[in-house]
This record gives sequence, structure tokens and C-alpha cells, in this order.
Amino acid sequence: MTAIRAALFDVFGTVVDWRGGIASSTRTWLDDHAPDRTDIDTGEFADRWRAKYQPSMQPIREGRREFTALDVLHRESLLELLDEYALPTDAAEELNRAWHRLPPWPDSVAGISAIRESVIVAPLSNGNISLLLDMAKNAGLPWDAILGAEVVRAYKPTPESYLRTAAVLDLSPDQCLMVATHNDDLAAARGCGLRTAFVRRPREHGPEQSSSEPTDDWNYVVDDLLELGVLLRQ
Amino acid sequence: MTAIRAALFDVFGTVVDWRGGIASSTRTWLDDHAPDRTDIDTGEFADRWRAKYQPSMQPIREGRREFTALDVLHRESLLELLDEYALPTDAAEELNRAWHRLPPWPDSVAGISAIRESVIVAPLSNGNISLLLDMAKNAGLPWDAILGAEVVRAYKPTPESYLRTAAVLDLSPDQCLMVATHNDDLAAARGCGLRTAFVRRPREHGPEQSSSEPTDDWNYVVDDLLELGVLLRQ
Repeated sequence: MTAIRAALFDVFGTVVDWRGGIASSTRTWLDDHAPDRTDIDTGEFADRWRAKYQPSMQPIREGRREFTALDVLHRESLLELLDEYALPTDAAEELNRAWHRLPPWPDSVAGISAIRESVIVAPLSNGNISLLLDMAKNAGLPWDAILGAEVVRAYKPTPESYLRTAAVLDLSPDQCLMVATHNDDLAAARGCGLRTAFVRRPREHGPEQSSSEPTDDWNYVVDDLLELGVLLRQ
Repeated sequence: MTAIRAALFDVFGTVVDWRGGIASSTRTWLDDHAPDRTDIDTGEFADRWRAKYQPSMQPIREGRREFTALDVLHRESLLELLDEYALPTDAAEELNRAWHRLPPWPDSVAGISAIRESVIVAPLSNGNISLLLDMAKNAGLPWDAILGAEVVRAYKPTPESYLRTAAVLDLSPDQCLMVATHNDDLAAARGCGLRTAFVRRPREHGPEQSSSEPTDDWNYVVDDLLELGVLLRQ
């Protein structure tokens, strides 16, 4: 079996808590810009923003829109959402930056550090470079490189996003391990020949979520990134 | 004056000793593959390889060839050079990888670490991602991200190489500091609005080199990267 040389990480949900981070930043933003709007459930606000995420990339995946960084797509989605909530849009950019400051799960920094002792570690995220870089500086994520959609000009789960990332690393797909809590991301990566690791993140969708389970026989299935670090050293 | 947010580094000559590294790797390679060729001056071999560097990128800068990673250009140049020296080409790839293992100058790791306390640090090199990543892992260079020609699909000193790098960082050009020992690189960066730092590297071209001097009033002129780290903290 070919040795794994690089671990490539999905980020939103797998490495950082997007729902908790967006809900918390939205609460602060509402306090500053719409303090009377105590009716808003910020967890639901986060879910509704995130619900616009996959559709926003679809025209780009299908070649109907030129490659556009996720910050721009997030901003477009946010402007729609603020309109739906009848909230002011003039401070939208401040809230849009919340994606740059998402908090890591408790095991992420130590886990990625441990994995980095064995292999190259990099995000393979749909997040743009400045978003991932700000997040890494803020959270202390020890990436070797910032890879992902903006580097290869292709959004997951298109084959190009995985194959071009392996290519810029000068690795074959089977020397790369895709790490994610999303079965569809792993299925697409496996379809391109990458190895796969599923990380359970049972609170990605908030406290009501009941489970986070693999739906296929991924190469690794772990409860957190520290466990993956141990397995990759063996 | 706008605060500097990112220091972007030229790499070959500024951060690492390309001539010393290539000469040393060539000596080892000759011992293995052409032990009778004691006539070869490996410093001159390094110079002749490097002399093909700028011309190899020119068709890409001019749009006459599609973007091609530096590893490929280095390999093409090496095959020509081996032919000029009447050396065997079958182990060329092994020697081509010498660019991935170039040694840092004595102050580079500590200097970049110090600069990283103030601002984002990343290479803005013509080297491709895997070359810069392997070099960083091997030498311990603490980059926040691996940027450069392959990320922005443009070779220095085209304006696109500097401007697109600032853009992916979501910074204005004047929030970026180009750090190099080459006046022409700094002149092109300044032409795009970046700030500039000249680092003296009086041994870039080997022991016979007499000096390394700025030819313009760059924003900073320093003897090494530790000195630049001190200045950026002020």
C-alpha cells in the first residue's frame, strides 16, 4: 500500500465549529447593530446562512459563473439573509468576517499538530486563502500550506478540486488522505483515488444533533483528530 | 501610513542559498552517477543552471506558453545542461529535486519567526508549491501560507504576480512588504504599490562576490532577516 504523504482537511464542521462560531458572532453583531431584535434565534440564523452555501457554489461548479472566492459568495448570501430577516445591511461586511474567526473543536490544534509529525497537513476547503489564513492565525492551526478551492480554482466536490490539489503537492491521489466529517466529501475524494478518514462531529449542527456516522467503509473512522494522529503514526 | 500586514519573501537567494545548495547536491549526484567527472566545478554548474532560469519563464510571462510549474522548467533546463556537460540524463529527476532541499541562510528561520510575530509571512517566489513546501519542511521555515507564482499563475516580475498575491490575502498592495535581495524584484513590487525591504546577501553568488547593495531608496535596507524583524516590531 502506498504511504500517505499528506492529510488534507475539510474545515467547516471538521476542524472548526461553524454553527457555534456564526451564532456567537451574530449575537454580538445584533447587540451592536440591531439590539431590539431579541426575537432572532442565532443558531437558526447560522443554519439559514449555511443553507445558502452549497447553492452559491453550484453555478461555478457547473461553469456558468467564473471562479469567485467564498468570501464574496458568503457576502451575497448574507445580504439575502439580512433582507429576509429585515435587518440592516450596512454593517454586513463586519458579520461576514465571522467566518475568518471560527473556533476550532477542542482537539483540532493538538490533533493537527500530531498528524503534522507524520505527514504534510493542509486544508482542502472551499474557504478562500485569506479566510483560512486568518482562521489559522486566530486559532493557532499549524498548517504546512493553505490549499483549497481558491488555489486550484475549483470547488469541492468537483474532481478537479481533489486532483489538482494532489497535483500541486506533486503527489498521486492515493498518497493523499482526505479528512472530513461529511460522507459526500469523502465519497467524491475516494472517487478520485484519495484515501479517506471520517471524523465524528456530533455537534456540528448544534446540541439537537443526535449522531455523526460514516455511511461507507472509509479507510479511517475516528472520534477526533488526536485519534487520527495516533493511527497515522502506526 | 498604512500598517504592513504581510511580509512576502523572495526565496532563491533571499531566504535560501541556491548556489551553495545546488553545488553541494551536484557534487553528491556526480559521485553517484559520474564519479570520473572530477573536472566539473559544481559552483559553475549551479551558475549555468541558474542562468537558464529567467529565460525559461519568459515565454510564460509573455503569454506564449501556458503556465508551467518551475519544477518542469528546472528539469528542462537541467536536461539541456547535462547535455552541454556530456553527462547522463537518466538520473536527472534526482538532481532536479535539489531545489526542494536548498539550505536557508543562518538567520532565515529565526528571522522569519521573529517577523511572523508582527505580520503574516509567506513566500512570494517563482518556486512551485511542492518545491516551497518541501523546502519549508526540510529547513523549518515557519510560513503562514505557501504563496507565489503557482498560486496566482503568474511569474515575477509581472504585475499580476504581486497584485494577485495581495488580492488573495485580501490586502491592499501597500499593506504588503516585498522582501528580497534583488533590486529588480523590489522595483517591480514598488511599481505595483507594495512596500519594499532589501536584504543584503553578499554570498548569494559565491565566495568571489564582493557586495550586495541596494540601488534605490527601499523602505528598509537590512543585513539580515533578524534585523528586519526588529524594525517591523517598532
